[in-house]
Amino acid sequence: MKAYVLKDAKPTFSFEEVKLPMLKESEVVVNLGAAAMNHRDVWISKGMYAGLKYPVILGSDGAGWLDGEEVIINPGQGWGKNESYHGKNFKILGLPENGTFAQQAITERKYIYTKPAHLTIKQAAALPLAGLTAYRALFKRGKLQNGEKLLISGIGGGVALIALKFGLAAGAQVYVTSSEQEKIDKAINLGAAGGFLYTLDNWGIAALKETGGIDVVIDGAGGNGFDQLIDVCNVGGRIINYGGSAGKITRIMPQKVFWKHLNILGSTMGSDRDFEQMVSFVNTHRIVPIIDSVFELKDAALGFERMDSAQQFGKIVFSIPPIV
Amino acid sequence: MKAYVLKDAKPTFSFEEVKLPMLKESEVVVNLGAAAMNHRDVWISKGMYAGLKYPVILGSDGAGWLDGEEVIINPGQGWGKNESYHGKNFKILGLPENGTFAQQAITERKYIYTKPAHLTIKQAAALPLAGLTAYRALFKRGKLQNGEKLLISGIGGGVALIALKFGLAAGAQVYVTSSEQEKIDKAINLGAAGGFLYTLDNWGIAALKETGGIDVVIDGAGGNGFDQLIDVCNVGGRIINYGGSAGKITRIMPQKVFWKHLNILGSTMGSDRDFEQMVSFVNTHRIVPIIDSVFELKDAALGFERMDSAQQFGKIVFSIPPIV
Repeated sequence: MKAYVLKDAKPTFSFEEVKLPMLKESEVVVNLGAAAMNHRDVWISKGMYAGLKYPVILGSDGAGWLDGEEVIINPGQGWGKNESYHGKNFKILGLPENGTFAQQAITERKYIYTKPAHLTIKQAAALPLAGLTAYRALFKRGKLQNGEKLLISGIGGGVALIALKFGLAAGAQVYVTSSEQEKIDKAINLGAAGGFLYTLDNWGIAALKETGGIDVVIDGAGGNGFDQLIDVCNVGGRIINYGGSAGKITRIMPQKVFWKHLNILGSTMGSDRDFEQMVSFVNTHRIVPIIDSVFELKDAALGFERMDSAQQFGKIVFSIPPIV
Repeated sequence: MKAYVLKDAKPTFSFEEVKLPMLKESEVVVNLGAAAMNHRDVWISKGMYAGLKYPVILGSDGAGWLDGEEVIINPGQGWGKNESYHGKNFKILGLPENGTFAQQAITERKYIYTKPAHLTIKQAAALPLAGLTAYRALFKRGKLQNGEKLLISGIGGGVALIALKFGLAAGAQVYVTSSEQEKIDKAINLGAAGGFLYTLDNWGIAALKETGGIDVVIDGAGGNGFDQLIDVCNVGGRIINYGGSAGKITRIMPQKVFWKHLNILGSTMGSDRDFEQMVSFVNTHRIVPIIDSVFELKDAALGFERMDSAQQFGKIVFSIPPIV
């Protein structure tokens, strides 16, 4: 099969012929029709990730066919028995194991799920990692309720956009932040109640007034601006952080955290049960992930460039040619 | 009655005769035998607190007599109906209402509780605010379980020390931090399993190895060293912050927060139910607050100096002379 292989952290990629290894008894081979990118792929390609190894086929998201059925793969593997957090054997598909940027992917059969019927193969490929992350962050960690106010920082990323769709489907009033008014406008077109430019000083206090206070924040950035997420919260607010694209959180006033009885909750991926419930939620509400752009797998470098410069609004998808 | 009155934020104090106002129907007058200090009193005396007013009688902790019965006062008043956080009418005794640094204190009858029989009046005065704060932080917010590992930062303060006693009574293995080995040694004498000097660089990683990982952290400091509390935690750890004596939290790696599925939880005081449960817990386990020192109320300035320079190990208590 052909695969898009990462050779080193320069990074060097090569679209080349790769031979599948022998399968273990519990494993299956999925013939992929589409894959999708996550920020994780960019970090790994730059050597900024734990447990690097080369060569490796990246890619956590994929949709395709197994035994004539349309399927998606749960990329969060080996979570363990404790629903509260993952165990030591937890792995994400696409490092250390080879991932979905290839014509075929090997995975244990228990991570195969039926593709939601209302999604195309490309849309389905855009769902797994972002959907799982957003679902757990919103509902398991954030315990988002119908009628609550939800703020999603950095709208445009895959998790942020699917969180927007999930939040609306759950009956929340959804606000967003971005550095670009254009992305805020797009989010409002999708159903957001409003948005805030995080490039403005002290936007948090203004947003607190405009929204009447936020109950749940979904944040994948951290960074210097994290204190604004604290300012915008209601008493009892829940801030769920699933990423650190803006680096270290550099200023938090403890007085605001304890006086507001805040909950700052780390969340990453989700359990097998979370994935199953996420897929069910997507089916029930007929949710469609937003696709930013589609590249052919052999041109995946274009996707890496696009994500690295934060141009995207939605998922970057790779179209995968069938084995002939 | 005589009271220790704060006149301004220089601060100017005066031990002087004060006339009690008319009581509302729901209010009672407690004849106090002892009061105790909290850091709050020091912040207010320096003008570093919201809602300042002068003159005011400070003091949130008091024990004494009402209708011939020995009683203590719950200083957390007007919490409201939501157990998850306090409502807008929440007040702490001792600003804006006059507090316990006086021969008599006025409070609503519903905040009066029977003094635990195993405590002296002075020991009982040392319990309310710190006991309430520690109880909610440990058990409502931190959900501390028997056999878990608990770390208490800045041992020596009132909340920290009663949290140590509560944690031991609940069957936790308790560790502490301090800037002074002497305070760590005292904590070990009280039953702590070990302690760490937070003045050492990267003590968190060393403590992680030594303890095998902490499940619950109780922190009243925040500050530059907060990241060490993140390092010392197990996956799924709960860090409860109830104070900001070390100022802004200046560095948190989001990656550590989300990858460890951490819970950073603000907590302040507690509900009426928390207070009732705390008193019951103290009775069941015959817990005795640690008293650092006792001053006569007229010499309260000595207590303010002692707390401001962080010399204390336990509560600073004021002995109050009876009205003659």
